[in-house]
Amino acid sequence: MTPPFERVALIGLGLIAGSISLSARRLANPPRFSGFARRAETRDTARRIGLIDRVDDSLAEAVADADLVILCVPVGSMADVAEAMRPHLKPGTIVSDVGSVKADVSGAVAPQLPPGGVLVPAHPLAGTEHSGPESGFATLYDGRFCVLTPVPGTPPEAVARLRQFWEELGATVEEMEPEHHDLVLAVTSHAPHLIAYTMVGVADDLRRVTNSEVIKYSAAGFRDFTRIAASDPTMWRDVFLNNKEATLEILGRFTEELFALQRAIRVGDGDLLFDYFTRTRAIRRGILEAGQDVDAPDFGRTVARNAGLKS
Amino acid sequence: MTPPFERVALIGLGLIAGSISLSARRLANPPRFSGFARRAETRDTARRIGLIDRVDDSLAEAVADADLVILCVPVGSMADVAEAMRPHLKPGTIVSDVGSVKADVSGAVAPQLPPGGVLVPAHPLAGTEHSGPESGFATLYDGRFCVLTPVPGTPPEAVARLRQFWEELGATVEEMEPEHHDLVLAVTSHAPHLIAYTMVGVADDLRRVTNSEVIKYSAAGFRDFTRIAASDPTMWRDVFLNNKEATLEILGRFTEELFALQRAIRVGDGDLLFDYFTRTRAIRRGILEAGQDVDAPDFGRTVARNAGLKS
Repeated sequence: MTPPFERVALIGLGLIAGSISLSARRLANPPRFSGFARRAETRDTARRIGLIDRVDDSLAEAVADADLVILCVPVGSMADVAEAMRPHLKPGTIVSDVGSVKADVSGAVAPQLPPGGVLVPAHPLAGTEHSGPESGFATLYDGRFCVLTPVPGTPPEAVARLRQFWEELGATVEEMEPEHHDLVLAVTSHAPHLIAYTMVGVADDLRRVTNSEVIKYSAAGFRDFTRIAASDPTMWRDVFLNNKEATLEILGRFTEELFALQRAIRVGDGDLLFDYFTRTRAIRRGILEAGQDVDAPDFGRTVARNAGLKS
Repeated sequence: MTPPFERVALIGLGLIAGSISLSARRLANPPRFSGFARRAETRDTARRIGLIDRVDDSLAEAVADADLVILCVPVGSMADVAEAMRPHLKPGTIVSDVGSVKADVSGAVAPQLPPGGVLVPAHPLAGTEHSGPESGFATLYDGRFCVLTPVPGTPPEAVARLRQFWEELGATVEEMEPEHHDLVLAVTSHAPHLIAYTMVGVADDLRRVTNSEVIKYSAAGFRDFTRIAASDPTMWRDVFLNNKEATLEILGRFTEELFALQRAIRVGDGDLLFDYFTRTRAIRRGILEAGQDVDAPDFGRTVARNAGLKS
């Protein structure tokens, strides 16, 4: 199979971009990666660890010879970056991104492309709570989904090439309408992140009262929230500001449910609580059956893992 | 060192009791474990897998010769179990438990003990999202905390013996006032669990709309909530009903904060969001420094783990 792209420019050199490059090195004919990051420190680190083939000191150089440019910057910066690189794109270059929000962002980026420019938005559903050029790894996309959100008018040939690109990195590619993507992600990602951030913030306030006991005894459930709430602040600020409507809708539903459960606790309605917790247990089974998590007893973490026990 | 107890009765034969027995088998002189569970099926399973030395068919037999009885049942059942075993305890037997709530439960159990009976409440902060007699494992308590909540008047000798018992199982033992324990756990465990249950419940409703996409794309953050929300429904119903005041207090604080963040999203206050997310990131570092979690990039789960990558 012909490689879908020969020269790929990665704009933004963090976890996602780094993992694209490292992942592609497993291929027989990887594309050649150029790249640019706004901060000199990030570029220096990327050079030092050999993250991509060529780190450029300007956006213009990085995109000049690319036939695919992938914007790997926070979604709030994408329109500005697209505008800045516009004069330097060669004709026919496909522009894509890795943003967690699609409708608003695609709407803002598309007008910044040169005449005839092709935008194929993408969102690889993969990541860790780490960020920066040293956090990438080759297997990040293996078995994970990458959602493309083309709109009517997006050339099917460009979509097919980007699909092949992500499939070669190990991802399972799906297509979705941008608005639908944003609703699904509000449920599965954006609202859960905001809730985790909130709970950790509450505990941080109380930590002053309880003299770091919150940290000491965090293994009892709270710990899992802190991992989510350690994700990149800039990225998440932009996600919430750019998927405002869907996130607020889900948070509204969440608050309704939370009030119902709080009321059940207050009035001592044990049956309501029991039924609710039984129902949520079932959805966990669904996730395990779908292969989207492992059934290891993860609350025990390393200890259980090292003991090599089945769950 | 003399073993602190020769005969230990475990009432309730789930994850916690099973792990006590399996953990003690690593000792040179383990105590002899008897045990009882209300459901015949649980007793049969415990016998079949040899979980403890002797599974009895009545509570009376299980506790008759024990010098330590540990109640490993949901906190809502503890007072009833204590009352039922009361005529069968030999003088001097120490009664303990493993409940996640201390003040209300200890207050309800203490009056059910025979004259001269000694209660030393305990809470091992360990567990997984699995439950039942087959979910226990020997290393569950290694390096985890076990909090004892004696009250004024509890014989120090009894506290010292129970401390030795848990330390031999691998736990780090701490002492705390019952009410303080319940507040700390409301922050680190009870409120986070209710919030996770709520978010999963919301997603479960929406799943009907989005045709299982919530499960398919759960790796983006939601997955971590479902693991917490897969915990035992009976246990958690009882926790919330018995730690009502502290849980509702923390949930009240949580709702305040959530509304402040929702408002920031609505009005586009990116600075507030960024500062908040930066602050919560710091608490994660505190947890890693305290050795309460590993810094592996866990969002990638098995794939990253198998690749043997550092974070």
